[in-house]
Amino acid sequence: MNNAHFIDVILLNALHEDIGILDVTTSALIPANHVSDAAIIAKGDFILAGLPFAERVFHLTDSKIKFRALKKEGGRIKAGDIIAKLTGKTANLLMAERTALNLLQRLSGIATLTGNYVKSVKGLKAKIADTRKTAPGLRYFDKYAVKTGGGHNHRYGLFDGVLIKDNHIAAAGGVAKAVKIARARAHHLMKIEVEVKNITEVNEALSAAADIIMLDNMSGGDMKKAVSVIRRRNPGVIIEASGNVTLDDVRSIAETGVDLISVGALTHSAPAADISLKIAS
Amino acid sequence: MNNAHFIDVILLNALHEDIGILDVTTSALIPANHVSDAAIIAKGDFILAGLPFAERVFHLTDSKIKFRALKKEGGRIKAGDIIAKLTGKTANLLMAERTALNLLQRLSGIATLTGNYVKSVKGLKAKIADTRKTAPGLRYFDKYAVKTGGGHNHRYGLFDGVLIKDNHIAAAGGVAKAVKIARARAHHLMKIEVEVKNITEVNEALSAAADIIMLDNMSGGDMKKAVSVIRRRNPGVIIEASGNVTLDDVRSIAETGVDLISVGALTHSAPAADISLKIAS
Amino acid sequence: MNNAHFIDVILLNALHEDIGILDVTTSALIPANHVSDAAIIAKGDFILAGLPFAERVFHLTDSKIKFRALKKEGGRIKAGDIIAKLTGKTANLLMAERTALNLLQRLSGIATLTGNYVKSVKGLKAKIADTRKTAPGLRYFDKYAVKTGGGHNHRYGLFDGVLIKDNHIAAAGGVAKAVKIARARAHHLMKIEVEVKNITEVNEALSAAADIIMLDNMSGGDMKKAVSVIRRRNPGVIIEASGNVTLDDVRSIAETGVDLISVGALTHSAPAADISLKIAS
Amino acid sequence: MNNAHFIDVILLNALHEDIGILDVTTSALIPANHVSDAAIIAKGDFILAGLPFAERVFHLTDSKIKFRALKKEGGRIKAGDIIAKLTGKTANLLMAERTALNLLQRLSGIATLTGNYVKSVKGLKAKIADTRKTAPGLRYFDKYAVKTGGGHNHRYGLFDGVLIKDNHIAAAGGVAKAVKIARARAHHLMKIEVEVKNITEVNEALSAAADIIMLDNMSGGDMKKAVSVIRRRNPGVIIEASGNVTLDDVRSIAETGVDLISVGALTHSAPAADISLKIAS
Amino acid sequence: MNNAHFIDVILLNALHEDIGILDVTTSALIPANHVSDAAIIAKGDFILAGLPFAERVFHLTDSKIKFRALKKEGGRIKAGDIIAKLTGKTANLLMAERTALNLLQRLSGIATLTGNYVKSVKGLKAKIADTRKTAPGLRYFDKYAVKTGGGHNHRYGLFDGVLIKDNHIAAAGGVAKAVKIARARAHHLMKIEVEVKNITEVNEALSAAADIIMLDNMSGGDMKKAVSVIRRRNPGVIIEASGNVTLDDVRSIAETGVDLISVGALTHSAPAADISLKIAS
Amino acid sequence: MNNAHFIDVILLNALHEDIGILDVTTSALIPANHVSDAAIIAKGDFILAGLPFAERVFHLTDSKIKFRALKKEGGRIKAGDIIAKLTGKTANLLMAERTALNLLQRLSGIATLTGNYVKSVKGLKAKIADTRKTAPGLRYFDKYAVKTGGGHNHRYGLFDGVLIKDNHIAAAGGVAKAVKIARARAHHLMKIEVEVKNITEVNEALSAAADIIMLDNMSGGDMKKAVSVIRRRNPGVIIEASGNVTLDDVRSIAETGVDLISVGALTHSAPAADISLKIAS
Repeated sequence: MNNAHFIDVILLNALHEDIGILDVTTSALIPANHVSDAAIIAKGDFILAGLPFAERVFHLTDSKIKFRALKKEGGRIKAGDIIAKLTGKTANLLMAERTALNLLQRLSGIATLTGNYVKSVKGLKAKIADTRKTAPGLRYFDKYAVKTGGGHNHRYGLFDGVLIKDNHIAAAGGVAKAVKIARARAHHLMKIEVEVKNITEVNEALSAAADIIMLDNMSGGDMKKAVSVIRRRNPGVIIEASGNVTLDDVRSIAETGVDLISVGALTHSAPAADISLKIAS
Repeated sequence: MNNAHFIDVILLNALHEDIGILDVTTSALIPANHVSDAAIIAKGDFILAGLPFAERVFHLTDSKIKFRALKKEGGRIKAGDIIAKLTGKTANLLMAERTALNLLQRLSGIATLTGNYVKSVKGLKAKIADTRKTAPGLRYFDKYAVKTGGGHNHRYGLFDGVLIKDNHIAAAGGVAKAVKIARARAHHLMKIEVEVKNITEVNEALSAAADIIMLDNMSGGDMKKAVSVIRRRNPGVIIEASGNVTLDDVRSIAETGVDLISVGALTHSAPAADISLKIAS
Repeated sequence: MNNAHFIDVILLNALHEDIGILDVTTSALIPANHVSDAAIIAKGDFILAGLPFAERVFHLTDSKIKFRALKKEGGRIKAGDIIAKLTGKTANLLMAERTALNLLQRLSGIATLTGNYVKSVKGLKAKIADTRKTAPGLRYFDKYAVKTGGGHNHRYGLFDGVLIKDNHIAAAGGVAKAVKIARARAHHLMKIEVEVKNITEVNEALSAAADIIMLDNMSGGDMKKAVSVIRRRNPGVIIEASGNVTLDDVRSIAETGVDLISVGALTHSAPAADISLKIAS
Repeated sequence: MNNAHFIDVILLNALHEDIGILDVTTSALIPANHVSDAAIIAKGDFILAGLPFAERVFHLTDSKIKFRALKKEGGRIKAGDIIAKLTGKTANLLMAERTALNLLQRLSGIATLTGNYVKSVKGLKAKIADTRKTAPGLRYFDKYAVKTGGGHNHRYGLFDGVLIKDNHIAAAGGVAKAVKIARARAHHLMKIEVEVKNITEVNEALSAAADIIMLDNMSGGDMKKAVSVIRRRNPGVIIEASGNVTLDDVRSIAETGVDLISVGALTHSAPAADISLKIAS
Repeated sequence: MNNAHFIDVILLNALHEDIGILDVTTSALIPANHVSDAAIIAKGDFILAGLPFAERVFHLTDSKIKFRALKKEGGRIKAGDIIAKLTGKTANLLMAERTALNLLQRLSGIATLTGNYVKSVKGLKAKIADTRKTAPGLRYFDKYAVKTGGGHNHRYGLFDGVLIKDNHIAAAGGVAKAVKIARARAHHLMKIEVEVKNITEVNEALSAAADIIMLDNMSGGDMKKAVSVIRRRNPGVIIEASGNVTLDDVRSIAETGVDLISVGALTHSAPAADISLKIAS
Repeated sequence: MNNAHFIDVILLNALHEDIGILDVTTSALIPANHVSDAAIIAKGDFILAGLPFAERVFHLTDSKIKFRALKKEGGRIKAGDIIAKLTGKTANLLMAERTALNLLQRLSGIATLTGNYVKSVKGLKAKIADTRKTAPGLRYFDKYAVKTGGGHNHRYGLFDGVLIKDNHIAAAGGVAKAVKIARARAHHLMKIEVEVKNITEVNEALSAAADIIMLDNMSGGDMKKAVSVIRRRNPGVIIEASGNVTLDDVRSIAETGVDLISVGALTHSAPAADISLKIAS
């Protein structure tokens, strides 16, 4: 991670959201020089994600806090595991605690759900990808967690990838025209992805030489047919499946032979991992 | 809502996160003057929350977009309901779409989960409260959604409420001392809440004249006993129950007679509501 | 002080306000490596407040400046006292000087005036409290100085305390209704304070179970009567007196038995303490 | 005033400092559509300053508030005068009130004190000037108030004027050398001002062709002598007197014939004007 | 342009850089209500670029300024042409003037130089592309000007395109390995471009299935050979030429058959167009 | 340079513009602990300017990068010279590279062009000055480069110098009136400069006691005459010549005897110096 300043702005903002003008309880009760040992402890099973950010939250609050990770980012954690040990001024540990845990719990939750999807398609070539359905302001972190959980990142936002949807096609006057214009206007390092809803559109996309075809909300049968048509006409095309994919149906979708399955739930509906900070009394 | 500038800063930041330098697809394919009608449509059942923010996201993108809400904030929505109708430049609708939906889906998800907890304690006096376990940067919105779903907001952050936990007590030298110092140092408009783990601590907190006692992770039996001790010794004290409360056990907790049950899951583990935007072709 | 980032933003802004693009005099005349000893010297008698912020201003300008405090924050200073000694690059000392002194002079002025009020009510239980009548952008510092001078901080802003005034009462439809609604909508950690103007309103506030009653601009006689009524009906209620309190009348107000006297002048009309920085030639 | 964006940033920051996440009292008690008339009323005599900023504070909160000024900026106000009438949503009036008044009271206080100094030197040529001893973050406003009160603005900060002090002289190696270097390095639109402490230094400054000579903390006799030397040797030189000037001695200083008297107290020790906002019930 | 907020932040910053606290000349001399007509006039021949930004600069200063464009963005302008007519408060026109012109002159200069390169390769398929050699903070504007002048935009920054250079290859352990890792780690919408220095590396890049090959600083002969090898082995590969391309040699480079020629000079060495604003007296 | 925070904000913004969310190529291919030596190398002849900023760009990216300058700021560089040697994490060197070079190339280009103008007037008293025609957002750097190249800085912006142009004169009602008002309203440390177009205006400006007279776009003959009139009537007046000055005519202008020649081209049309960073493989 070398985009450190970008990260810090978000973390400082999160700390300020919680602490505001002052932690009234801590500033009243904890002597300025009171020092404690603390531990970040797992209270459930999960894939760990966000540890470097949690560490950074503590260090932005107080650069002298000692933070020793006992578990590895991306590793599988069991309830009761000690994830990290900290030593530092008690007041500063307490003030950073909630922000650090909120991030760690959210990101580990996302990584864990991603890991479950990845496991469901084990042995098949399909990768599990995220979407832009992330918590506003936290996209970098949400997508980082997907990657940590074994998933694949889709484009970050509207600026770093071309994805042509039905409204774009309608406004542009057809699939062929849309792909052609997009290829001319986007820079040459970008591939062109087109969303299609049926076999007719699959064929149009292939004729328009789209680099990637997204099968949106297709039935299993249609999807299988679409994959076979695409593989036959142009084996270089990447095929993405999309549309309310659940843990129950992700394997059957993967079995159609698609390259990529994008899952909004990874980032919008992952339950948080249960993690707490314990200060040694 | 009259803290408009504070809200706008967060929403503009979210829009920038998604759009970045430019929506490469839309700017390539949608003519600048292309106008569309659009609808925000429910694809599941939920309590609606966040509509004013979704509207604001569209208006921050383009103040000329027409936005007509057909459903009321806080209302129960059925799959297929049209929540709002929009008219405006297609490019601007497309660029604001994801940010608006991400907020609306998150907040409606939180409101819906809150509503389920509230329904579970129907007829009992206990209120369902949120915690500080919110998505970093989105606390205002997360807590707003809890309120919209019928819940009660706990303190916003570390700055607007005194909550004395075990570490504060240890550092201060006991419950009585901690309450006394906090009362002297916090401003006089703040009540003093103390977290306790057992009946001994309950009695200490009562003797220290705490205004609010939080029963943390107590068993049902202990909780019942704690409530009875508190009610007997000081009926004016507010009692809060806390600690991994689930939909399954929330009613039995409420039946102990506590005033407030705080639930972290409301904001850290609510699945998103399913909502989409459809542009009329 | 552990809300360091919040403080730094304000201090850096103040430095930038003074230095702008460049200190044209210093950059022209002081060689980059020229080093000096300097002293912060009192030119009058006052209570010292703001020393940690003055130190921080120097360190934000140049982290290598050595700053040794010779006097204690909150201590009584005599004209001629050396408050702190500094050593560092002359250019950096000169550039930070004005901003550091402006803060130190303002805060020591506020602390000193506060100390005078506190001394005036010596032996009585009344605390001297500040108000929201602070210099825009400097509330944290102004309130810090009041505390340093022996005063009590009132709520920080509109967000961390409920204070119901006549307009709120009129719009809500009476004192009882206003208190009830406020208690329901504000979080449970907040007390409810009501401003009253006469004995009738005192009684309404008591009936409505307000936690704190502010006697606004009452005559001495009315105030005495109000205190007696309140103490009789509910000894737990906190009584605050408010309204253009001066050093001349503060003791007589305190003698009515109120708990708290809030004084706008502490932060809006305290003359600055006279402090200068002398560079050893 | 056309530096509107620069002003707005400071005013929005001040509003946010007071309102934070939400005005908990107003948002609980004032119905969203409740409308009121209000008046800004003088409770003492003063010179009015800051009215355009007070108006802007209300309009930044709610652009639909109607604000009609009844008094002129810079005019003399009597206790009881209505300064402005407002109509708008009650909630928004209440939320902007304190910030608007804090500015208005501070700036009118500064303008009034300035006016008193100006009156004290009536009939003499000396102008009353401010210094850089302003409230951190509010320099623009403080200096604006000095001008409104009839005073003269000194340089804004370290960047827009050269003022050579003893430390600069020592580091540069003498007055002549310092003036020469400063003239070469500063841009040609800047005059060179030098601070002197005695007649010897006055003569050095004159020989060095300083444009402006500041007589710092000189006795009345020395000052008179300095003025006479300067006028004789170079009548084009501007003479500034400086150093803890009070209302008591300002006229005698002016009578020495100096062009300018700079007074730190104008901005660091002016008591606030007494102004309140009354909402019509 | 619908990334309006992103643009505004940069333009407001530029205005503030020039105006600072106040335009001392204009605020002293131009009456607040003085209104003028003005014209933006060409004093040389160029391709016009930046007109929407210039208009925005005036409107950010004063939304009531009337701005009528008489010439089209991207059009060829002759000395003496009136580009736009404005009417508004004289003070506001004067304060926005320099910032608006600085942008307009820079962008028109870039567009004009780009146009000259494009004309030089007329009839050949090679597109003229920009690089990341832009003025820090102005990349969006610089690249916009290249497009307006008929050029092609390369990736915006390090985040929206993969370009593997020699150092990346060395660290990754060879071309094949580097391309493979990049393809796996970058999202699937990104193509992989590799920089090569000779025919050996061209062949490695082809074997590694790079999507785009950049011929860096090759001689004309080598470039011709490289193009022929690439076309033979994989006609789908895009070929970019790069390395201190001048107007003198750009056509001969284009004649080698490359698809794209990137030219740093477009944005780092284009002389400004000569444009002024004339206020009608 | 002690306005470090002001500088850092601009440099961090420039780094973020280039890196955005992540350098996708480097983060994929360069191992986190991979370390390299690198050199900044001249590929042409120029005057070096911007080295401290380039160093700061690397240190803002990674404070542990070792940066050893081998050449002096302001020195004449020959093609092939090594300007600085660096050692540090390869990923961080690569991410800072473009931003550092863009600044260094721009500033060295400006310094070099300035040096050429300065050389052209060698032996004459005229100084070469910059203008406000700088790249928006980079004025501090552009003007720094002019100084480094041997030039003289004109006022920084509209706030730190009075320059009365024809529109100001027209609105104020004549040269004499304009100068008088400006002198009264601007602070006393500012000189008054007036722009004139012919001998009649020169005489008006002299009668009005302007401190500086700018001869705008005058012919050589008129300029000579103007200089002679000014020197005769008031030898203390500074004379500036302005208006599309080129390297071809700058000496003949200087020979008229003016004190200062301002040249917009220095900052708006200087070609970039050719500089690259080479990482040792």
